[in-house]
Amino acid sequence: MTAPADLPAPADFTFFETLKVRWGELDPQGIVFNPNYFVYFDIGVTEYFRAIGFAYPERLAEAGTDIFAVSAQANFRASATHNDVLRVGVRTALIGRSSLTLGFAIFRADDLLVDGTVVYVNAETKARRSAPLPAALIERILAYERTPPARK
Amino acid sequence: MTAPADLPAPADFTFFETLKVRWGELDPQGIVFNPNYFVYFDIGVTEYFRAIGFAYPERLAEAGTDIFAVSAQANFRASATHNDVLRVGVRTALIGRSSLTLGFAIFRADDLLVDGTVVYVNAETKARRSAPLPAALIERILAYERTPPARK
Amino acid sequence: MTAPADLPAPADFTFFETLKVRWGELDPQGIVFNPNYFVYFDIGVTEYFRAIGFAYPERLAEAGTDIFAVSAQANFRASATHNDVLRVGVRTALIGRSSLTLGFAIFRADDLLVDGTVVYVNAETKARRSAPLPAALIERILAYERTPPARK
Amino acid sequence: MTAPADLPAPADFTFFETLKVRWGELDPQGIVFNPNYFVYFDIGVTEYFRAIGFAYPERLAEAGTDIFAVSAQANFRASATHNDVLRVGVRTALIGRSSLTLGFAIFRADDLLVDGTVVYVNAETKARRSAPLPAALIERILAYERTPPARK
Repeated sequence: MTAPADLPAPADFTFFETLKVRWGELDPQGIVFNPNYFVYFDIGVTEYFRAIGFAYPERLAEAGTDIFAVSAQANFRASATHNDVLRVGVRTALIGRSSLTLGFAIFRADDLLVDGTVVYVNAETKARRSAPLPAALIERILAYERTPPARK
Repeated sequence: MTAPADLPAPADFTFFETLKVRWGELDPQGIVFNPNYFVYFDIGVTEYFRAIGFAYPERLAEAGTDIFAVSAQANFRASATHNDVLRVGVRTALIGRSSLTLGFAIFRADDLLVDGTVVYVNAETKARRSAPLPAALIERILAYERTPPARK
Repeated sequence: MTAPADLPAPADFTFFETLKVRWGELDPQGIVFNPNYFVYFDIGVTEYFRAIGFAYPERLAEAGTDIFAVSAQANFRASATHNDVLRVGVRTALIGRSSLTLGFAIFRADDLLVDGTVVYVNAETKARRSAPLPAALIERILAYERTPPARK
Repeated sequence: MTAPADLPAPADFTFFETLKVRWGELDPQGIVFNPNYFVYFDIGVTEYFRAIGFAYPERLAEAGTDIFAVSAQANFRASATHNDVLRVGVRTALIGRSSLTLGFAIFRADDLLVDGTVVYVNAETKARRSAPLPAALIERILAYERTPPARK
């Protein structure tokens, strides 16, 4: 477990997507079935790209590339249940040459329920060979994020 | 409610797909979330086409058509729960000029839990104009089904 | 197919729930996987009960009953795709002694994509014996709906 | 990325659950929507507990505890598509005092598509205070696994 000091807080995120937990997302324990938190992350990504003003996937498709998730990770710290209103924070944590690491945190009010990361790689759609992230995407991210992403 | 005499029985079906209820398919009442029965129908359709020996969707694609669901209906008579082994019976109930009505019944052992129908229409993939069902598909169905479909 | 004159229109509904189509709800044709329309219906029901001011399921639980879907039906008239904003209209179409028939229509702007009905029966939670709908629920529905439900 | 030498191989697993990719699990790219790999992990866990002969969750419930996932991680190395037959390998990688780390790998024939881990903690169902893993569970795991789990 990460020490409390390292846990993400709402102030770390410029972008939030709000959603309400659906009945069909619950399991027999009455709480959100864990894989659905990764669905919530995915919903957040779509809206994050919209928010930063980068037309995804059209802008990448122009260059013959797309981004592919290569890994995903989440910590389940507390449970969400039916009708809970959740705020899915999304930020760019790390910008590499061809990879992008997005950080996520799901809050109910200011309580952290789940956090995690997903690593994406930009790659040629056909050959699946990695390709540099477009400069325009990096610019948009840097202009948008109040908490600057790490670079590598 | 249909009269008991009209309820589908295992003997009505030549084809069955067997599946086991998954934890993530349950709702907080501990029973299968209703929309998932339509997912079970859909799984049955894929395997039914394989069973009758009609390569779907390749054979339709050769003629520039595909089949589209235009309506779906189900009766929920009893509930399935975690680890239940279900038999999804699929049969062609009605063959029209361009439409195909499939009948479904989901049994746990010989107990009927759910039954229903889905109506498909064969249509040009681009123009979405209805097209006659290929004769080869009708032949395969008639050769396969022990309970002959109605014609209209 | 129902004649156009019989198709539901936005004006038939007092209540709408708005939702945006998610990536994970699409199939490889790039359109919403059909069973998800029944999920959309279900989301609409939760919010409909909230809108009419009937605390579901608490108010039923006080009398030892719950409502159970006994059948569901939908017509798929046109397809929704990623990021489409959908309005899910929900109304009470028919009030019986122990049964409630809800009518649904899903619109993109004013275009009808899907319509359908789900029949619920109020029943004792343990014995699963049908029980009359509570008068308070019927009152709330009648006070809320601009298009009066049928009675039987 | 882990070096190839560290990648899981079929020989590392005593237990496999076989499943076939369903149409509704695909996204518009025609490949499995990533969160569904965590659903596959979850299906594997249910069958793994059955395979080792530990009645889950009944045996834990007798002691007033249940196991809760506290984190999950996956690497997506290659994509699965419709009708692919997948083998989900599940093993106990690490046994702690109250925690259990399960390792997963999803193979199509012998090709590794996805691997990952999920960490579970045994906790009192009411108080959510961590509780030691039952000795009977540890015994069953050790008796079953050909590749011995690490201890901590």
